[in-house]
Amino acid sequence: MNANLIAPTPSAYAYPLLIKQLLVNSLSLYGDQEITYRGEMRYSFREFRQRIGRLASALSALGARHGTTVAVMDWDSHRYLESYFGIPMMGATLFTVNVRLSPQQILYTLNDSEAEIVLVHADFVPMLEQIKDGLKGVRHIVVMADGQPEPETALPLAGEYENLLGQASPEFEFRDFDEQTKAATFYTTGTTGDPKGVSYSHRDIVLHALVAATSLCAQKDGQRLHREDVYMPITPMFHVLAWGLPYVAVMLGLKTVLPGRYVPELLLKLRQSEQVTFSHCVPTILQMLLQAAPQDGAPDLSGWKMIIGGSALSPVLCEAALARGLDVFAGYGMSETGPIVSLAQLPPGFKAADPREEVRMRCSPGRPVPLVDFRIVDEEMRDMPRDSKSQGEIVLRAPFLTQSYFKKPEASEELWAAGYLHTQDIAVMTPGGFVQIVDRIKDVIKTGGEWVSSIEVESLIAEVPGVQECAVIGVPDAKWGERPMAFVVCKPGMELEPSAICERLLGHVESKRISKFAVPDTDRIAFISEIPKTSVGKINKKALRGQPLTSDESSAGLRKDSARVGEVLRSVNYKPE
Amino acid sequence: MNANLIAPTPSAYAYPLLIKQLLVNSLSLYGDQEITYRGEMRYSFREFRQRIGRLASALSALGARHGTTVAVMDWDSHRYLESYFGIPMMGATLFTVNVRLSPQQILYTLNDSEAEIVLVHADFVPMLEQIKDGLKGVRHIVVMADGQPEPETALPLAGEYENLLGQASPEFEFRDFDEQTKAATFYTTGTTGDPKGVSYSHRDIVLHALVAATSLCAQKDGQRLHREDVYMPITPMFHVLAWGLPYVAVMLGLKTVLPGRYVPELLLKLRQSEQVTFSHCVPTILQMLLQAAPQDGAPDLSGWKMIIGGSALSPVLCEAALARGLDVFAGYGMSETGPIVSLAQLPPGFKAADPREEVRMRCSPGRPVPLVDFRIVDEEMRDMPRDSKSQGEIVLRAPFLTQSYFKKPEASEELWAAGYLHTQDIAVMTPGGFVQIVDRIKDVIKTGGEWVSSIEVESLIAEVPGVQECAVIGVPDAKWGERPMAFVVCKPGMELEPSAICERLLGHVESKRISKFAVPDTDRIAFISEIPKTSVGKINKKALRGQPLTSDESSAGLRKDSARVGEVLRSVNYKPE
Repeated sequence: MNANLIAPTPSAYAYPLLIKQLLVNSLSLYGDQEITYRGEMRYSFREFRQRIGRLASALSALGARHGTTVAVMDWDSHRYLESYFGIPMMGATLFTVNVRLSPQQILYTLNDSEAEIVLVHADFVPMLEQIKDGLKGVRHIVVMADGQPEPETALPLAGEYENLLGQASPEFEFRDFDEQTKAATFYTTGTTGDPKGVSYSHRDIVLHALVAATSLCAQKDGQRLHREDVYMPITPMFHVLAWGLPYVAVMLGLKTVLPGRYVPELLLKLRQSEQVTFSHCVPTILQMLLQAAPQDGAPDLSGWKMIIGGSALSPVLCEAALARGLDVFAGYGMSETGPIVSLAQLPPGFKAADPREEVRMRCSPGRPVPLVDFRIVDEEMRDMPRDSKSQGEIVLRAPFLTQSYFKKPEASEELWAAGYLHTQDIAVMTPGGFVQIVDRIKDVIKTGGEWVSSIEVESLIAEVPGVQECAVIGVPDAKWGERPMAFVVCKPGMELEPSAICERLLGHVESKRISKFAVPDTDRIAFISEIPKTSVGKINKKALRGQPLTSDESSAGLRKDSARVGEVLRSVNYKPE
Repeated sequence: MNANLIAPTPSAYAYPLLIKQLLVNSLSLYGDQEITYRGEMRYSFREFRQRIGRLASALSALGARHGTTVAVMDWDSHRYLESYFGIPMMGATLFTVNVRLSPQQILYTLNDSEAEIVLVHADFVPMLEQIKDGLKGVRHIVVMADGQPEPETALPLAGEYENLLGQASPEFEFRDFDEQTKAATFYTTGTTGDPKGVSYSHRDIVLHALVAATSLCAQKDGQRLHREDVYMPITPMFHVLAWGLPYVAVMLGLKTVLPGRYVPELLLKLRQSEQVTFSHCVPTILQMLLQAAPQDGAPDLSGWKMIIGGSALSPVLCEAALARGLDVFAGYGMSETGPIVSLAQLPPGFKAADPREEVRMRCSPGRPVPLVDFRIVDEEMRDMPRDSKSQGEIVLRAPFLTQSYFKKPEASEELWAAGYLHTQDIAVMTPGGFVQIVDRIKDVIKTGGEWVSSIEVESLIAEVPGVQECAVIGVPDAKWGERPMAFVVCKPGMELEPSAICERLLGHVESKRISKFAVPDTDRIAFISEIPKTSVGKINKKALRGQPLTSDESSAGLRKDSARVGEVLRSVNYKPE
C-alpha cells in the first residue's frame, strides 16, 4: 500500500502542537492586555511572558530539565498561571497538587508523581512540614510568600518565588520537542482507592483549548465566550487545569482575573471592579455567590456567563442564578477527559415553550462539542436509541483524553476497554442530542430486584419545601439486597419530619415518576447539618457509606465496577416502561 | 534525557486528526441540517453522510485505494462537498482541478498529480476531449450530468456520478490512518513558471478548520461566524479548498448553500431565498454582486458577512459594500498557507475616530489568527519594527502550511528557507498588529535607484474620478532601469486623458505620499477595456508584461525572486523617510 504521506522538504517547520504556541498570537496582538491578581497587583501579557522566562531560568538553575516534575501548591494566582506555561514549556511536567487532600494523600501524590521541585504558598508550608520526612524525590522547595514576610519554617528552602524570579533572566530558550511530551499531571480524588495520576500532553492541551474555544465562541448569543470577555476562573487551578480554560483565555488574549483563595465577598468585588464577564465553578461556589450577593441592586450579576461543572447543577439553583441575571449553563467532563466534552449551550434557534424546559437544558450535561465522539452504549458497546429513556454508559473518543493512569496499567486498560474511554456514568440522550446523567454506575441502588437512580431520588427530595440539600446512597438490606438511604440538610431555621419526605415521594410513585422501591423507609431518612463533599466539591458518597478513604482497592475496585456496568445496563435496558 | 512522553495504555484510542472527525459532531447534533445545490435540490447532513459512503464505495469499485489521486472538475456543488470528505476519508487524495486554466495546463496538472480517476462535470467534457490523448495515468472518467442527459462524448466513461452513487452502498468502512496522509492537492497558478503542486494532510485541514473557526467565531459582534449562520462559498471550490471554510461550516453544522456556476443574479437570489449570512469571495465577485443588486430595496444585502481575499480589497469597493449593509472584511493567505493566516476583523473595543480608518482596517490583510507565527523580517530574518513603515517580507509558521511542492525540491527549499514559509509579500505592520502589504517582491519597480510599490501607485490611480480599475507594472527603461507603466480601465461612458492621471499623482508627490519617480510618464499610461486576470481573479501582471504563461522557469525563477528579496529589502529598509 502507498502510505500517501506528505513528504516535508528538509527545511519545512513541522509545527508540533506545544503550549508555547498558544502565546504567539496573544503576545503579538494583546501584549498590553492585563492579568490581575485579586485586583491588588496587575501586569501586562508582555510582562507575563517575561516572567515565564524568568520562572524557567530559575527552575533551570535549581536543576529542572526536560522531564522533571515540578509540583505547585498555591491558590489561584498569577504565579499559577505562570506555572501553567513556564513549566511545561521547558519540557518539564507541571504537577498541580490538590491542596484540599489530607496531608497523607498529598504525600502519596508527591511521591507517586516523582516530583523533584515544589513551589508552595506560605499557607501550605505547615502541611508540607507535617509530611516532609516521608518525601522521597523532592530536592528543592520554593516558597511563595505572596507579599508577606517569608514564613519561618524548618523546611530547607531553595528560595522565595519572587526573589528567584527577580534574580533570573527573562531570556530562556524554549525549544521545540515532541508534542506528546507530558505537560501536566494531577490526581483524581476518585471515590474509591488511592488517587490515580492523570496526565495530559502538550498536544492534548492545545487541542482541548481549540475545541473548547470553538464550541464556546460559536454560540450566537447566550452561553458564549468572545474576545471582549473578562475571564476569572473560580474552579481551583489544581483541578483539571481549571477545566483548561486559562489556556483558552490566554490564547484569545482575554483580560484575566485571578482571585487567589476563594472568598465570596472578594469574588463579587472583583466581578464588579474588574468587570468580569466569564467564569466557571462548581454548584457550591455558585450558591455561595448568590448567598453573598445582596438581593437588591449592587453588586449586579447580570451578564456574567458561567459554566457550572464538577457536580450536577440543580434546577432550583439554576433558576435562582437566572433570576439574578447570570447566564449559567452546565458543562460535562471528568479529570480524564480534558475535561470539557459537552456543554449545555441552548441549541440554534431555541425558543423555550416552557421556561422549565430551558432550565432543564441548562442543567443537563448538554451536547457534545466538536470532534468528540460521544456515545451512550450498552455493555456490548451498541449505541442506545436517543429516545430520552434508553440508558447506557457514556463512552468517549476525543483528541485530548488521558491515555493512561500513571503506573496503573490495569486501571488504564479498564478505563480504555474496547478503545473507548469509559466514564462509568449512566445516561440517556434526547433526540436533539442533550445528555441526561441518570447515575454513576457505582451509585445506582439495586433494591427488590429493581434498579433505582440515586440522582433521581435526590432531585425529587430536593424539591420538598424546606430541603436545602440531600444525598442518597444504597445501604445493605437482608431482605431487599439494598435499600435507599437519604441524608437531608434542611434550610436554616427549618425542620422536617421523615414522613413529610416519604409522603412527597409516594406522590411521585402515584404519578409513576419513580417506583415504590425508590422511596426510602422513614428510618432511613437522616437529617444532618452538612453533606460531606470531596476536595473538589462533589458529594462524597464514600464518606456517607463510611468507606475507608485511602484504602488501596483501585484496580480491583474498578473491576468490580465494570462487572456492575454490565449488571446495571442489562437490567435498565430491558426494564418495561 | 528523559523524553517524558505520555505512554498510552494499549487499548487507548490515539485519535489521529482526520477529516472524518469533522463530521462526528455535526451528524450527532445537526443531522437534519440542510445542504442545498442552487436551491433546486436539497438534502440533510444525514443524507450527505450516506452519499459520502456511496461515493467511497463507487470509487472503490473503480479501483480507488489508499493513495489513489482522484481529480474533480466541477462547479461549486454538493458533489464537490461530497468529494471534499469522501475522497480523503478513504485515504485517497482529492485533486481539485482549476478548470479556468488552459487545456494544456490542465493536462500538465492531471499528469503531474498522477490522477487515476477524474470526476468531470458535463460542461468540462469538451475540454477533457481535447487533451485525452495526452493523459498518462487516468484510468477512469466519471461524468457528472448534473440533472441533464448524459453528454455524448468519445471519452470512455466509467459511468455517471448519480448512477454510480445510486448503485453503491452507503456503508463504507472509513478506517483510521496516519494524520499526515495527503488529503488534498491542487496547483498554484503562480505568476511564473509551471503550476506547482501544493498539498495538505488531514492534520493540516483539521487544524486549519479549528483555528479559522476559533478566530472567526471569537469576534464579539462584527466580522464573525456563529452556529446560526447560513454559509455560501463564492470562492471556487477548486481554489485552496474554498479557503478551507466548507470544512468549518460542516464541522459547526451550518446550513450550506452551494451555488453551482457563479451567476450574479442566482447568487443574489440564493442569498435572499436561502437567507445566506456568511460568504467569501474575491473583489471581482463582490463588484459583480454590487452591480447586479438593484440600488433600492430588494434584494437586501444587509447582514451578509463576507471575507474578501485573493487580491486586495480596495477602499472604494469596501465603502460601496458597507453602504449596502455588507459586513466585508479582508483575509490574507496564499495557496501554500492553508490558506487563512490573518483576518481583518476590527479589534476588541474598536471605535472608529474616522470612518476611513475603519475602511483601511477592513481592507488590510488584518491581524494574524491564533497559533500563527506571523513575522515581517529583513533578509537576515530579523524582525522589523512595527511602526507602520519598516518594510520586510512576511514569513510564517503555522500548524497547517504546505510542507513542500510536489516533485519540486528546489522550489520547496526556497519556500521554506531558514525554516519559515516565505510569502514573497513585502509588508509593514502597525503597532496594533495590522498588516499592510506594500507589494509582491517581483512586482516592486526599481526606477532611478528608487523602489516604487506598484500597489501604492495602483491605489492612488484608483482614486481618480472615472477610473474603474487599474494595474501598474515595471517596464525596462534604458535610462532609469525600469519605469512604472499603468493600465487603466475607465468606468462605462467615461473617458480620461493620461495627463489627468499624471496631474493627480503629482499632487500626491507634493504631499509626499509618493516619490516623483513613482509617477508614470504620460506615454506609459494605457487605457484598455479590461485588466487581464488570472484564473482565480488576481491581476495577471505576467500577461501585462507579455511574459509567456507556461514557460518552465520555476525553480530558476524562484531563485531570481529570492535574490530580489534581498535587494528590495536592503534598499527599502534603509531608505531615509
